[in-house]
Amino acid sequence: MPVDAQAAIDLLKELRTLTADEHGSQRLAWSPMWLKAREWFQSKLGELPVEHHLDAAGNSWATLTGSSDRTLILGSHLDSVPNGGWLDGCLGVIGAYAVLRRIAEDFDGKPPVTIRVVDWADEEGARFGRSLFGSSAFAGAHSIEQDRARTDAGGMRLEDALAACGVNVEGIGDAGRERENAAAYLELHIEQGPVLESMGLPLAAVLGTKGVERHAITFHGQEAHSGSTPMAARRDALAAAAKLALEIRTIAGRYADAVCTMGSVKTLPGIVTAVVGRCEVTLDQRDLDAGVLAQMYREAREKSIQFAEEEGCTVAWSRIWNIAPVPFHPQLIELCEESIRETVGQSHRMPSGPLHDAAEVSRAGIPTVMMFVQSLKGISHNRIEDTREDHLELAITAFDKLASKTIDWIRAQ
Amino acid sequence: MPVDAQAAIDLLKELRTLTADEHGSQRLAWSPMWLKAREWFQSKLGELPVEHHLDAAGNSWATLTGSSDRTLILGSHLDSVPNGGWLDGCLGVIGAYAVLRRIAEDFDGKPPVTIRVVDWADEEGARFGRSLFGSSAFAGAHSIEQDRARTDAGGMRLEDALAACGVNVEGIGDAGRERENAAAYLELHIEQGPVLESMGLPLAAVLGTKGVERHAITFHGQEAHSGSTPMAARRDALAAAAKLALEIRTIAGRYADAVCTMGSVKTLPGIVTAVVGRCEVTLDQRDLDAGVLAQMYREAREKSIQFAEEEGCTVAWSRIWNIAPVPFHPQLIELCEESIRETVGQSHRMPSGPLHDAAEVSRAGIPTVMMFVQSLKGISHNRIEDTREDHLELAITAFDKLASKTIDWIRAQ
Repeated sequence: MPVDAQAAIDLLKELRTLTADEHGSQRLAWSPMWLKAREWFQSKLGELPVEHHLDAAGNSWATLTGSSDRTLILGSHLDSVPNGGWLDGCLGVIGAYAVLRRIAEDFDGKPPVTIRVVDWADEEGARFGRSLFGSSAFAGAHSIEQDRARTDAGGMRLEDALAACGVNVEGIGDAGRERENAAAYLELHIEQGPVLESMGLPLAAVLGTKGVERHAITFHGQEAHSGSTPMAARRDALAAAAKLALEIRTIAGRYADAVCTMGSVKTLPGIVTAVVGRCEVTLDQRDLDAGVLAQMYREAREKSIQFAEEEGCTVAWSRIWNIAPVPFHPQLIELCEESIRETVGQSHRMPSGPLHDAAEVSRAGIPTVMMFVQSLKGISHNRIEDTREDHLELAITAFDKLASKTIDWIRAQ
Repeated sequence: MPVDAQAAIDLLKELRTLTADEHGSQRLAWSPMWLKAREWFQSKLGELPVEHHLDAAGNSWATLTGSSDRTLILGSHLDSVPNGGWLDGCLGVIGAYAVLRRIAEDFDGKPPVTIRVVDWADEEGARFGRSLFGSSAFAGAHSIEQDRARTDAGGMRLEDALAACGVNVEGIGDAGRERENAAAYLELHIEQGPVLESMGLPLAAVLGTKGVERHAITFHGQEAHSGSTPMAARRDALAAAAKLALEIRTIAGRYADAVCTMGSVKTLPGIVTAVVGRCEVTLDQRDLDAGVLAQMYREAREKSIQFAEEEGCTVAWSRIWNIAPVPFHPQLIELCEESIRETVGQSHRMPSGPLHDAAEVSRAGIPTVMMFVQSLKGISHNRIEDTREDHLELAITAFDKLASKTIDWIRAQ
């Protein structure tokens, strides 16, 4: 029998009714509304012949034991940013649930491999600033040392918020036990960007998550009176920054999927009557190719020095954060494309700019792939986030095909 | 006998000792320290055969009655910005005092024309945001309607601060009476810019004060995720603003003394992971020629629209403030140059970017000119503001010559 995509869409709407207000979804991790969403989801799991438990990091696992211990994991996250959309994360969890239900029925409760659905804890990191919390604990990549001191906007410590949800922050590394027998991980997610919409395509196979170089850059010039300082005598820190703001577009433009963003500019003293003496900007560079990423970083850095010199300024760089690209599994990417082509005729391959739990799973050495479904207007993390219902239906159908193909692939190993 | 420039420099140092702390001069208008500076100055005036009074706007007038009612006014302002320099304003007041003393002695208390020294009230506007307070009241250009509601950072109303200094805000227009018989106005001031230093010249005749066009400009694009939004799909408000930040330099570069400054850039949401959806910038354009100023404003406006279109953005302009250029009196400019040449051999003509009380006096129809003396490093409004002492001496000597020439010019009218 086919997967019941319409039932899954109805569940997504039910969850929205339960956990959104007029500003959007409010399933902030470790909050009462998030716990309510999880309780609701557990009640749905109760209709299936699965074992359920929370792991040491608060990830929620539903297991349908198969003839083999080798395990296919499907999942995503139920938590949302504040005032979030109705699909980011939820689609992957509910889509996985629909596939789990279809498999349980098809194989009369005993599929050839074990199937697990995971709802990762705190993917968004919206409250404590630490995204991919649960999946990184699962992957063994989480160092709690850096995070213990984190507090939310209300001053509550991460440690205490977790304890209130039954999670002991000292023990989250034990979530790594869940990796046992994991043979593949699949995640369905909305694109959260405008690419598929602009191409008129509903679905894409995701090649991996882009690496990120994130830097704070400060240009130092000379504050000067806007009225008494001739143009030629100025050392205008904003001019150097403006040149870089434009140059990063040229740099990104040399590579197919690369992006470079200057998201913040601060001018000091920042008053209408003074030439800018100091200009602080941020730079975010992303690409799936580690070599391209490194090259873009070098180019931006060299150009910033050149522009500083041209303007009689100096420039200082400070790395905010970086992460290497995470390419997904080539054979699973193939299977993902096959599933999409069989469902909608035409597929597309694209990297993901945003990070996802799948990146942590893949970094842990588990063969992984994601499937993207088109987002309307490319908008996410906002209550107007949306996807056409016919596209949601196609996505769940294609994702179900991918699960079947992946089960066969696991069995053939 | 010659003017005693050294005595004037000693007085400037005495005033600095009296009214500066380790952060600089603290003669904020309407403050106890300002009143203390004025009291000190009044005691110095007491050594001369002059009448002294405050006018309705708090301007301080010392009058040496001459054989003729026709009056030469010399002056500047004792008030400073917080943490200000030791010369901005004071030099013009103390320099005028030195000239007044020389004239009183030369003519045995009865010069051929009446000589007045004025210390304008609140030139800086540093406390209530209204610069040229006293001189604009004198000129009849002050509309108290717009200013009555002003408060300082501590919430004190302008009206109450003035009352504490004996000034009734409703009556400041009466200061216009002081214009009677005014035949010329001369003001000596530090340049507050780097031009004379770069030319290796101590003194300049000032052609007038530049007009100013001051605008807030907002580019509206589309906030978007820095990871998921391809470069070609962006509507980056910062990119449009960066183009304008660079273009205004080209625009100013077409005219000899024009300046254009983008002093403030604000990015919204202003986070490292988002393409800038809204960018708010300020533009300050100045030139002595009203036609050039209007043309620069048109060019910046047209370019901003072009850049917005190129980036898929829109742009909105809002005028913050503007003032027309104020050219000084051609014959007094000539006399000023003669005085400088006779003193130091070589003169220079330049417009003033900053505004000065002289602009208000000139707008009131009184023949006016200013003399600039070199500033070290072009720095003002800062405790490191400075001028070489030999330059101060030359400045006071040349200013004294200018006063003598202007007395002759008034008599010849």
